[in-house]
Amino acid sequence: MSKLGIHSFVWSAGSSQAELEDALKMTSELGFDLIEFSYLDPHQVDVAWLAQRIEAYGLGVAVSMGLPRDGDVSSEDPSVVANGVTILERAIALTRDLGGQKLAGILSSSHGKQEQAPTARAWKTSASTLANVAHTAKSAGVTLNLEIVNRFESNLLNTVSQGLAFIEDTGSDNIFLHLDTFHMNIEEADIGLALRHAGDKIGYVHLGESHRGYLGTGNINFAAIFDALRAIGYDDYLTFESFSSEVVDEDLSLKTGIWRNLWSDNVALAEHAHRFIDLGLETSRLKMELMKAEHKANH
Amino acid sequence: MSKLGIHSFVWSAGSSQAELEDALKMTSELGFDLIEFSYLDPHQVDVAWLAQRIEAYGLGVAVSMGLPRDGDVSSEDPSVVANGVTILERAIALTRDLGGQKLAGILSSSHGKQEQAPTARAWKTSASTLANVAHTAKSAGVTLNLEIVNRFESNLLNTVSQGLAFIEDTGSDNIFLHLDTFHMNIEEADIGLALRHAGDKIGYVHLGESHRGYLGTGNINFAAIFDALRAIGYDDYLTFESFSSEVVDEDLSLKTGIWRNLWSDNVALAEHAHRFIDLGLETSRLKMELMKAEHKANH
Amino acid sequence: MSKLGIHSFVWSAGSSQAELEDALKMTSELGFDLIEFSYLDPHQVDVAWLAQRIEAYGLGVAVSMGLPRDGDVSSEDPSVVANGVTILERAIALTRDLGGQKLAGILSSSHGKQEQAPTARAWKTSASTLANVAHTAKSAGVTLNLEIVNRFESNLLNTVSQGLAFIEDTGSDNIFLHLDTFHMNIEEADIGLALRHAGDKIGYVHLGESHRGYLGTGNINFAAIFDALRAIGYDDYLTFESFSSEVVDEDLSLKTGIWRNLWSDNVALAEHAHRFIDLGLETSRLKMELMKAEHKANH
Amino acid sequence: MSKLGIHSFVWSAGSSQAELEDALKMTSELGFDLIEFSYLDPHQVDVAWLAQRIEAYGLGVAVSMGLPRDGDVSSEDPSVVANGVTILERAIALTRDLGGQKLAGILSSSHGKQEQAPTARAWKTSASTLANVAHTAKSAGVTLNLEIVNRFESNLLNTVSQGLAFIEDTGSDNIFLHLDTFHMNIEEADIGLALRHAGDKIGYVHLGESHRGYLGTGNINFAAIFDALRAIGYDDYLTFESFSSEVVDEDLSLKTGIWRNLWSDNVALAEHAHRFIDLGLETSRLKMELMKAEHKANH
Repeated sequence: MSKLGIHSFVWSAGSSQAELEDALKMTSELGFDLIEFSYLDPHQVDVAWLAQRIEAYGLGVAVSMGLPRDGDVSSEDPSVVANGVTILERAIALTRDLGGQKLAGILSSSHGKQEQAPTARAWKTSASTLANVAHTAKSAGVTLNLEIVNRFESNLLNTVSQGLAFIEDTGSDNIFLHLDTFHMNIEEADIGLALRHAGDKIGYVHLGESHRGYLGTGNINFAAIFDALRAIGYDDYLTFESFSSEVVDEDLSLKTGIWRNLWSDNVALAEHAHRFIDLGLETSRLKMELMKAEHKANH
Repeated sequence: MSKLGIHSFVWSAGSSQAELEDALKMTSELGFDLIEFSYLDPHQVDVAWLAQRIEAYGLGVAVSMGLPRDGDVSSEDPSVVANGVTILERAIALTRDLGGQKLAGILSSSHGKQEQAPTARAWKTSASTLANVAHTAKSAGVTLNLEIVNRFESNLLNTVSQGLAFIEDTGSDNIFLHLDTFHMNIEEADIGLALRHAGDKIGYVHLGESHRGYLGTGNINFAAIFDALRAIGYDDYLTFESFSSEVVDEDLSLKTGIWRNLWSDNVALAEHAHRFIDLGLETSRLKMELMKAEHKANH
Repeated sequence: MSKLGIHSFVWSAGSSQAELEDALKMTSELGFDLIEFSYLDPHQVDVAWLAQRIEAYGLGVAVSMGLPRDGDVSSEDPSVVANGVTILERAIALTRDLGGQKLAGILSSSHGKQEQAPTARAWKTSASTLANVAHTAKSAGVTLNLEIVNRFESNLLNTVSQGLAFIEDTGSDNIFLHLDTFHMNIEEADIGLALRHAGDKIGYVHLGESHRGYLGTGNINFAAIFDALRAIGYDDYLTFESFSSEVVDEDLSLKTGIWRNLWSDNVALAEHAHRFIDLGLETSRLKMELMKAEHKANH
Repeated sequence: MSKLGIHSFVWSAGSSQAELEDALKMTSELGFDLIEFSYLDPHQVDVAWLAQRIEAYGLGVAVSMGLPRDGDVSSEDPSVVANGVTILERAIALTRDLGGQKLAGILSSSHGKQEQAPTARAWKTSASTLANVAHTAKSAGVTLNLEIVNRFESNLLNTVSQGLAFIEDTGSDNIFLHLDTFHMNIEEADIGLALRHAGDKIGYVHLGESHRGYLGTGNINFAAIFDALRAIGYDDYLTFESFSSEVVDEDLSLKTGIWRNLWSDNVALAEHAHRFIDLGLETSRLKMELMKAEHKANH
């Protein structure tokens, strides 16, 4: 049975101690098992304190990030790649220091609308670079989870099939797929079939609606998603992610085009998401049991 | 906003005071607003007592039934029709005496697998007979709600369009449609569109899954149903109905072919149904609000 | 790639030479690969002639039937079971003599609304009887394909899981499932998942809409069905079945409750079905290819 | 009944006479009724010749475009707005000169990933500017059809509700919505409901799959779309749009992130699209007729 996570930006884009404490408190109070933080700068955040607070709340933690343009590991410029490696190593250390095991997000290229088609050289540079970074990560007890995102946020890995081919090219056993239903709705031929295709290479999952608002109020068939996750035996974290112009991280909001107020009350939103995922997983379990029940007449 | 009902056969097919009391208690405890009883024989059940208990629990009540073969108001035999009228009048009285306003179920023909195609004469006999019965019902403050059922349970009214034409032929303003998603899944071209087509002629609604078990574990798209009910402004009762070989009413189970054990724990079932409908209605409301939000830039 | 069949009752319920010739001609002209006949009485139909005509048109042929009440192989009465065996043996012979390899339909019990719950004894009697019949069939080069039908047409096998358990109990390798989307829409938790669950035990498939009319005008998600059939590698016949009060076989129409005129023009219907299935299969193939395309940047 | 169009970039991104002639020829041969051209520069294309060829083929024509950053009519810089007006006026003239009546595309802002949230001032500037342009267009017998696109291609109008509010603010009766299913899949709460909400304000429709490849191989429920278009009585053009890295318009491919080869054979693609839309529209018509059939017993 999967565990539920929530992205901290549902609570706040800020990283003051008060904001972080509040995010942990709300995450815990609403019954989520994990909090996901976008990369936090150790110069601005007291990492040891945060790790202690996460543990005190009994929460799991994951870290996500998107590489900046000047740290794109698929770049033709070796100094940009080297900068990307440094950034990834910092994120691995942060993940470990917070007590987490998963680094997720857009790690194979920079995050944002790109102005050129991907090249075979970019693919190779990224794969060989991440193979090395994955080695470092493994030593830290951290997995790399490559987020497969839509065409407007990266030009390199937009589908599960690309992600699987990429992982194979890295040769690493410490690199997995970070799948996100918002992106899959744009890029995959079929979300349920793509999840089945990805199988045990899935390391992390984001549940987001087609417009990134309330679950169930968009075009995504979540029942098919829960069925597929159950069919492949995924029992790791399912993290709810939602963005609204109500909570603004300057950089991420621009990169992801959050122009509308899709919700105002984040507590109502998170509470709804928890109920939605819980009921969906339970209903999917009942459905699988029913489908396999032999129902032999027994009288 | 719709109110939630539940069919008493989820709790028990028995009609002893203890069984009835338990059904009311469970209905109330799980947060349902109404209990639906299949016709209860006043010679076997203390109607005044039951009415008082229903009121004490603050519940609404509806009565449903299927006419027997020897009380088929679409029959060519006038004595059979007359018997049907007597049966309907008794059910109207029971509904009124229990404090209810809705008589529902298969009222336009007998209930069960029929052995002949419907005829124009049967249609007319039924329509003119029900026009009179509806008059009686109106005096009792009770509406007639004609259940539109699948081809294996009646040969007369299987679709919304047939039901609307039939009501028009009765000329009555006290006859409405009783729609049931289980039946609609078999007979309608599109459940959501059929609900829109029925519009304000809907008097009562059964929510049942395609196999009559747990909601969400079958083939019915309930999100589309909640959206359609909201679009037409239906705010009356939505009653959960589910059958399993676990609870057997001899007559109804045979007529409806309940051969399998689709559930054993009726409390878990009912609790799940309540959560499922609640969340579905809430999500549908959020979706409609989102769809109509103008989201004008305001800075 | 699957081949397309059509049930002869789309053309006519009659079995005169002229009617049979016309059915073959239309089947061939509209591009179907197989015709399915309900059991034809060799005393009324010239089987050798028909076999020759089928071959002349280059068509495949399948035979389907539902056991009558007095030939129910799940009966407690040995003489009824024996009669059922005789009927099945005749149907096997007919299938072979027509040049076919598949006997399909409701072979494990009688066809029609039953008035009692199934018993363990009925299940066992049916399984052991069919094990023997399957042996006979194998010698004739014919497979038995047990149609899994809805609760109103049989009380014994309503789901894939029941069918698989039943086949296992027969111990036979010559018994398969005959699945029909019309019935699956009523009984299965999920049609696509049930097809995957059935896997290589599927011997024959009927494609029918939820109301048995035009494909695509009801509640069934055929895209998911084509995807599932492709996923399990089913490449055998897909036979279109549709009933309307326009073409009446007295016995079958009553058993299946065909009260409405769902279509009048059977040529338009069949032509539409062929296009619908062709396009659905092609689109499903394109979708699978897309889902697995690695799309590595190659410049 | 709707008429079918196709975007010329399915054929070629080039605008030589040979390429244009080939695009018209293929459009006509495959049975489409209209060709849509992205804005063509009259200094490079012989407009009179092209208009004559379009007419010779008996085709309709529409022109689409996305405003460039230096012609953004929502800009705070009046000279940029003025440039946008000039560009729009040229496009109106081109549309008229080609014999068309519809100018479509991203007319209310620039096309592409924007780096700032929309402002109330941008909205007002755009609305008042387009009100004037619409006046000019009306004189030319051309309507303005504002494409509602996803958040990554414009920050101003992403949903039907925003579009309706915007049109109301223009006060113009010559401005309509240009809706595109690819974009709607990302931004709308429900594509079918949004089409119903838009109603007679829809001036032009693009049918595109969720990944912009073959229709039916992605996440969009086209049956619901055809049903909705029929419900609101839309009988104008439905234009198929699909992009692959196989056919590259440098500017548009980068703005829309076409990184993958979603198809190679554009003839097979267009032929499939025509069959898919035709069959979908026909099936939707049959479904509506069935849903409204009264099916009164008539014997």
